[in-house]
Amino acid sequence: MSTNIPLAGWTRALTRSALQDMLVASTQPGLLSFALGLPAAELFPTEDFASAVARVLATDPRALQYGPPLRPLKRQVVELMALRGVACREEQVFLTTGAQQGINLLVRLLLDPGGAVLLEERTYTGFQQVLQPHQPQLIPMPTDLEDGMDVQAVEQALRRGPRPALLYAVTDGHNPLGVSMSLEGRERLAALAGRYGFPIIEDDPYGFLCYEPAPLPPLRAFEERWVFYVGTFSKILAPAVRTGWIVVPEEIVPFLANLKEASDIDMAPLSQRAVSSYLDAGVLPAHLTVLRDEYRRRRDAMLDALERHFPAEARWRKPSSGLFIWVEVPDSIDLRRLWREAIELERVAFIPGQAFDVVGNQPAGNGLRLNFSNCTTSQIEDGIARLGRMLKRHLSSASALPTKA
Amino acid sequence: MSTNIPLAGWTRALTRSALQDMLVASTQPGLLSFALGLPAAELFPTEDFASAVARVLATDPRALQYGPPLRPLKRQVVELMALRGVACREEQVFLTTGAQQGINLLVRLLLDPGGAVLLEERTYTGFQQVLQPHQPQLIPMPTDLEDGMDVQAVEQALRRGPRPALLYAVTDGHNPLGVSMSLEGRERLAALAGRYGFPIIEDDPYGFLCYEPAPLPPLRAFEERWVFYVGTFSKILAPAVRTGWIVVPEEIVPFLANLKEASDIDMAPLSQRAVSSYLDAGVLPAHLTVLRDEYRRRRDAMLDALERHFPAEARWRKPSSGLFIWVEVPDSIDLRRLWREAIELERVAFIPGQAFDVVGNQPAGNGLRLNFSNCTTSQIEDGIARLGRMLKRHLSSASALPTKA
Repeated sequence: MSTNIPLAGWTRALTRSALQDMLVASTQPGLLSFALGLPAAELFPTEDFASAVARVLATDPRALQYGPPLRPLKRQVVELMALRGVACREEQVFLTTGAQQGINLLVRLLLDPGGAVLLEERTYTGFQQVLQPHQPQLIPMPTDLEDGMDVQAVEQALRRGPRPALLYAVTDGHNPLGVSMSLEGRERLAALAGRYGFPIIEDDPYGFLCYEPAPLPPLRAFEERWVFYVGTFSKILAPAVRTGWIVVPEEIVPFLANLKEASDIDMAPLSQRAVSSYLDAGVLPAHLTVLRDEYRRRRDAMLDALERHFPAEARWRKPSSGLFIWVEVPDSIDLRRLWREAIELERVAFIPGQAFDVVGNQPAGNGLRLNFSNCTTSQIEDGIARLGRMLKRHLSSASALPTKA
Repeated sequence: MSTNIPLAGWTRALTRSALQDMLVASTQPGLLSFALGLPAAELFPTEDFASAVARVLATDPRALQYGPPLRPLKRQVVELMALRGVACREEQVFLTTGAQQGINLLVRLLLDPGGAVLLEERTYTGFQQVLQPHQPQLIPMPTDLEDGMDVQAVEQALRRGPRPALLYAVTDGHNPLGVSMSLEGRERLAALAGRYGFPIIEDDPYGFLCYEPAPLPPLRAFEERWVFYVGTFSKILAPAVRTGWIVVPEEIVPFLANLKEASDIDMAPLSQRAVSSYLDAGVLPAHLTVLRDEYRRRRDAMLDALERHFPAEARWRKPSSGLFIWVEVPDSIDLRRLWREAIELERVAFIPGQAFDVVGNQPAGNGLRLNFSNCTTSQIEDGIARLGRMLKRHLSSASALPTKA
C-alpha cells in the first residue's frame, strides 16, 4: 500500500492485520474452515425476514425515504436488553450500523490521541483496528481462561494511574479465547468503573448465544453509568441487516448522534423498519432456541472430536457462549507454520492465536481459535481429525529436534 | 449538550448546527415544507425494488451473510459513470453507505488536524460537519450564481499557498445555491487540481437529475488522478438503500477499505445485492426519465409561482440540475425572523441561506433555499403564494423603518 497522493499522517498507522490476510486465505473454495467467525447461513430466518421486508415496503410509505432513527425499534431493544437482565430506557438506546460502528463511534467519542486504553492481551482485532488512528497508550491485561479478564490486574493498573480513556471488554464468549467472565469478575470490574470513573465499552455480540441454562447478565446490569453496552442483530438475526445498538447514559446520545450524522447521516429507515417488523412478528424467541440448540450441538461435536483426535498435550475448555473454542498447544508448535500446512496439505483452516495479540505484547500460551458455528457436525469431525493428525506430526518432529544450547 | 463523562477533546468542536434545529422545526405536521432536500417518496420505484429484494433473498444464500463489497455492483457503477461521461474501471470504485459516508471517509483519509480546506462560502452543511473534528484552516471561495465556484479565486488561493489538503465541490445542482458550474469552470478547476496536485472531493448527488438536454460531465471526466468522485443511489433510487460509491485512483482503495472496515466492517451484502438486482432488471433508465420529467415540472411550477407571487425585488435563476431554487432578497429582510413567522403564521417552511454559511464567514447575498422536489405543483403554488405575501409585508415594513443614523 503506497501512493504519492498526500494522505493524512495517521493513515501511516493504518495497517492491514495478519488476520485479514489469513481470513482471505481461509475463504479459498474447497477449504474446510474453522477460521472465520461466521454464523450459520442455513439457520438465518430468511423467509421470516423476507416477509418483514415485503410487509414494510408494501405498507409503510416512509420505508425508503430519509427518516430519523426508529423509535419502535429502540423500544424493542429495551425489551431485548431485559432478556439479558439489563434495565434501560428507550432514551438510552442509540441505533447503529452493526456493533463495529458502535465500537468505532464510542472510541472516537472517548479517546484523545495518545490516550490510555485498557484491553486484554489478546482481543478482537476489529477493536484494535479502531484504535490505530488514535495511537493510544495500550495497557494490556491478562485473561484467565477460566474466569476472563484479570480484574486484579485492572485494579493495579488503575491504582498506578493514569485514569484510562476507556476499557474494552467482551464479557461473554470472548473472541478469540471463548471464555465468559465469572460473576465475581463482572461485579468487581463494574464496581471499579464506578469507583474510578472510567467508561467500559462492553462488546456483547454473543450474549444471546449462551448454551448453558443460566446465562450471566452483562456488565451493564451492574453499572448503569460507566458501562457503554454494544449489541447487534448480526449473530441473532443476520449480519446483512447491518443493525446494532448501544446503551449509554442519555446525555451521551446527542454526541453520538452528531458523530453518526457526520459519518453516514444516521438514517437507515428500511433496515431498521424491517428488523422492527421481524421482531413484531414475535418469532425471535423461537429462532433463538433453534440457534442455541444447533450451535450447542456443534460445540459439543467439536469438543467430542477434540477429545478423540487431538494430542494429549493440547488443552481446551468448554465455552458457555459464543462461536469459538480456544485450544492451547505446547510452545514448541509453530502455529504459523501449522496454519500454512493445514491450508495447503490438509485443506483445513483455523486462526493462530497470535493474530489477536495486542501489538508489542506477547501473552503466555500458544493457541488456535476454532470456530464451530459455521460447519456441520460431520465437517467438524472430519476437520478436527485432520488437524489432530497434523498436530501430532508436528509434536513428534518438535520433540525429535535437538533443544537449543 | 453537556456531560461529566470525560469525552475526547475534539467533541467540544462538535456542534449542532442551526440547520439541524430548523430541519426539525420543518417536520411539524401540517407544515407545507420547502425546507428539506428530500426526493419525492411517491416516485420511489418501491415495487421494482421490493421485487429485487425478494428475488435476492429467495435465490442468493449469501445475501444475509457477511460478505465482501459486491463486484457486480462495482461493474454496474462503471456503466452508470459512463452515462455521466466518466471513464473509470471497476478497481477504482469503492462502495459506501451513501454519499455522506463517502465524504467522511475521504476527509478522514486526506485531512490532518489543522490542514487547509478550500470550500465555497456557502456549502452543504454535512460536509462542514465532517470537517469539525479536524479543526481545519478553512479557505472560503465565493460562488458565482451563474457559473458556480469562482475558479479564479481558487487559483489565487493556490498561488498564495499552502497546498490545500482538499477542495470540496458540488459541481451540479449546488446545495444550497442551485447553480451548476460552467464548462469552462470545470475545465479550469480540474486543470488546477492536476497542476498543483491537490485532491478535489466532487460530491455529485444530483448529477443524474439534470433537467436540460445536455448535462455537462463532472470534474472527474476532466481529471482522473486528483478528482475523487462521490456518487449515491439516494436520489435516483431511494435514500433508504444506503448505498453510494466513490471513484478514486486504484491505489487509494486499500486505505479506504481499512478505514471503512474499522468504521462498520465494510460489508453490506443485502443492500448491495438488492441494488445490483434492481439495476440488472434494466428499469433504471426509464425511472430516471420519470424522475427528471416530474422534477422538471415541479421546478417549472415553482419558477412560475415565484414570478407571479414574489416581490419585484427578489431575484432567482433557473437551476439546470438538483432539487433547489435559491432566491435572493434585499438585505433589509431578516430571514431568520421571516423563517419563524413563515412557520408560525403561514405554516410554510424554507431554509434561510445563512444556515449554509461557512463558520466565521459572511458571504454577500441574502437568500432563501427552496426545495421543489418534495411537493406537488398545487402545494408549490399555494406555499409560494403565502411566502410571497409575507415577503411583501416584510419589505414594506422594512422600507417604512427609519434608516439608521
